[in-house]
Amino acid sequence: MSTPIVRIEQLPKFIGETVQVQGWLFNKRSKGKIHFLQLRDGSGFVQGVMHINDAVSEEVFQMCKGIPYESSVTVTGVVKDDDRAPSGVELVTQDVVCHHQPETDYPITKKEHGPDFLLNHRHLWLRSSKQHAILRIRDSVITAIRNFFSDEGFICLDAPIFTPNACEGTTNLFETQYFDRSAYLSQSGQLYMEAGAMAFGKVYCFGPTFRAEKSKTRRHLTEFWMIEPEVAYANLDDVMVLAENMLCAIIKHVLEHRQPELRTLERDIGKLEAIKAPFPRLQYDDAVEKLKELGHDFEWGGDFGAPDETAISEAFDQPVFVHRFPQAIKAFYMKRDPEDDRLSLSVDLLGPEGSGEIIGGGQREESIEVLEEMIEKHELPKEAFEWFLDLRRYGSVPHAGYGLGLERTVAWICGTEHVRECIPFPRMMYRISP
Amino acid sequence: MSTPIVRIEQLPKFIGETVQVQGWLFNKRSKGKIHFLQLRDGSGFVQGVMHINDAVSEEVFQMCKGIPYESSVTVTGVVKDDDRAPSGVELVTQDVVCHHQPETDYPITKKEHGPDFLLNHRHLWLRSSKQHAILRIRDSVITAIRNFFSDEGFICLDAPIFTPNACEGTTNLFETQYFDRSAYLSQSGQLYMEAGAMAFGKVYCFGPTFRAEKSKTRRHLTEFWMIEPEVAYANLDDVMVLAENMLCAIIKHVLEHRQPELRTLERDIGKLEAIKAPFPRLQYDDAVEKLKELGHDFEWGGDFGAPDETAISEAFDQPVFVHRFPQAIKAFYMKRDPEDDRLSLSVDLLGPEGSGEIIGGGQREESIEVLEEMIEKHELPKEAFEWFLDLRRYGSVPHAGYGLGLERTVAWICGTEHVRECIPFPRMMYRISP
Repeated sequence: MSTPIVRIEQLPKFIGETVQVQGWLFNKRSKGKIHFLQLRDGSGFVQGVMHINDAVSEEVFQMCKGIPYESSVTVTGVVKDDDRAPSGVELVTQDVVCHHQPETDYPITKKEHGPDFLLNHRHLWLRSSKQHAILRIRDSVITAIRNFFSDEGFICLDAPIFTPNACEGTTNLFETQYFDRSAYLSQSGQLYMEAGAMAFGKVYCFGPTFRAEKSKTRRHLTEFWMIEPEVAYANLDDVMVLAENMLCAIIKHVLEHRQPELRTLERDIGKLEAIKAPFPRLQYDDAVEKLKELGHDFEWGGDFGAPDETAISEAFDQPVFVHRFPQAIKAFYMKRDPEDDRLSLSVDLLGPEGSGEIIGGGQREESIEVLEEMIEKHELPKEAFEWFLDLRRYGSVPHAGYGLGLERTVAWICGTEHVRECIPFPRMMYRISP
Repeated sequence: MSTPIVRIEQLPKFIGETVQVQGWLFNKRSKGKIHFLQLRDGSGFVQGVMHINDAVSEEVFQMCKGIPYESSVTVTGVVKDDDRAPSGVELVTQDVVCHHQPETDYPITKKEHGPDFLLNHRHLWLRSSKQHAILRIRDSVITAIRNFFSDEGFICLDAPIFTPNACEGTTNLFETQYFDRSAYLSQSGQLYMEAGAMAFGKVYCFGPTFRAEKSKTRRHLTEFWMIEPEVAYANLDDVMVLAENMLCAIIKHVLEHRQPELRTLERDIGKLEAIKAPFPRLQYDDAVEKLKELGHDFEWGGDFGAPDETAISEAFDQPVFVHRFPQAIKAFYMKRDPEDDRLSLSVDLLGPEGSGEIIGGGQREESIEVLEEMIEKHELPKEAFEWFLDLRRYGSVPHAGYGLGLERTVAWICGTEHVRECIPFPRMMYRISP
């Protein structure tokens, strides 16, 4: 029988057995007659311990002495329980076959590299344990989101990327030549999801969105992924409940499947375990009062800046909903609060630990008369919205939804300062390669 | 206790109970003292039968007489088993609350509409039973793909959309202004997935891709979704097995979850049930021989046209792998066949029933020397590929992968002629709205 090829994350199921690991040499140290080979195979990391003895040929032992980092290797060994190891096991190594040895030194070393150097080497930087952990957590967040919406009876309805009009100005839009005309890259699938909700009841889109913001903060990308659910027959309260249940499902899934990665990131897991619905709900008016109490110079009517968001979120140990923003600072389609015409039935969710706004949404205006009035007030080209107005002409119903920024959510869960590390190949104002 | 709100697809679990359905009036006929109200709520379709009797008010009965199509309604009734109904149940209706009645006739009627009319009304056309069925199947295909790769130990690693170079010419590329330079919209995430495979072992991306093809066939979209797995330590045979297992998992999932939708489409379900791995594998040379036997005027060395693909696929009742195409017609990164230098370790999968090429892929060249030679031969700008060449400088391993076109796969499964019906908001050469 041939030796089974096993991925590192599966090794604890093979204790006492001889297996092969196909991967790369991540790190190495030698002590006389022992090599400690740190191996990675993409699923995890494990230490291969090689003693010079009858089971190991002199030739292989000598080769392993000189083998450079990031050589590709197939390692044969016996899986041994080891409580001290992060993977829970080590590999008592009998044989190493090297497929390819780098001829030049691997560029990413243990020394501190600047962000530009690392981003220029993003295709290799992905192999580093921290980046590896972040992107495996990102994958887990994606899976959790898909599973959650599927279990809740939603269908995935992809929104288009090419859109015909720059309805709200071209400032933050990427424009592209589309045969003999112009097109714009989507900033949000929401209007399309409203059409979807009227056809399928509960829909979400999950794709890349594009904002040409000349912003260089740690929270901005020109290309980022957003999930946007939209629900027919739902109101503001319904989508707050949906959003908090979704976030709890994400955290639960990550805690169940990504413990080694969270430990690699030295994440305070207790803070994630403590996340529990219902989240605090704060009306905008009360958030403004709170900011004033905290000494912020904030006028009613404005939108929160990053320091304001941080101050509000730090007053709680959970994500916080802020709802009913002034309608003047929200989009034309946001429903006005029937109890206070100055307000809109909108909501933002501020993540904990200074992670900022991770969700924005609310209830949509279902009356065609009010919508037409708002389109006029916002000086928008009505003809571009005729199809959108059709949704109010034919069986209009109350409906609501939101958008969740994937990378900001991953940054919060990972405890990572920069969103640029939370997407495989980040795109920013000055960064479009590799 | 308040009446539970139940989605139509869940009604069979509530037989004998009084429930509420929140939806729209899809169709209607009346016969004296009975209304047959066809209801939809996005999860399915059900008939509400309303008799004039003690349980129904005269006022409600009269309202239902005049209520127009696509009115939004909440219907209260008792769920009754009905074997003749496609949903398996009917709703003995006691009350109807109408939220909104269209003031003008719903534009999509039972009469035949032209494709332009329907595409112009895509935001409403989504509500039609056939489109509804196709897009629910699309959702199911997406779920099946995600589940399959997750179960196989892959992680989702999103490829970037903005790419810096038009390496292979700008002919089919969409160009966009990216601050003070140009960028191009991705046609494939593959090169990025190769970097991902070296970091994570098994990765896939699943996102929109863009091709500015001046093509108006029933198989082309300018914006379509593609899934691209890439596997380290894998060869051509491995990815053929992966692809056929993936397709079988997709078919199984759709058959388990989307029977009503397949019936709506009058799909021959037997043909889907008959799909079984392993699929036939045909070397390119043998496919050429077969074409000649069938009387096609085909020269060795060329790529197959749609009629050739159809002829090959019709010779089998399963999807067919055609492998080892001439290397001259494949991309520079495709590994040459060590047994015949004229050939490449490439593979296409032709779907059955004339659905054409749904998968393209193969084994990648892992030698830096050969790759550099190919880059020169194809007259590509080497500096744009330096990062890609790094993957061969540091721990190169055999690796392979493929791309599956989502909409073509959905078109095959649904038995739909046009891929434009297999994406929520299709984008084609002359179509960018709504």
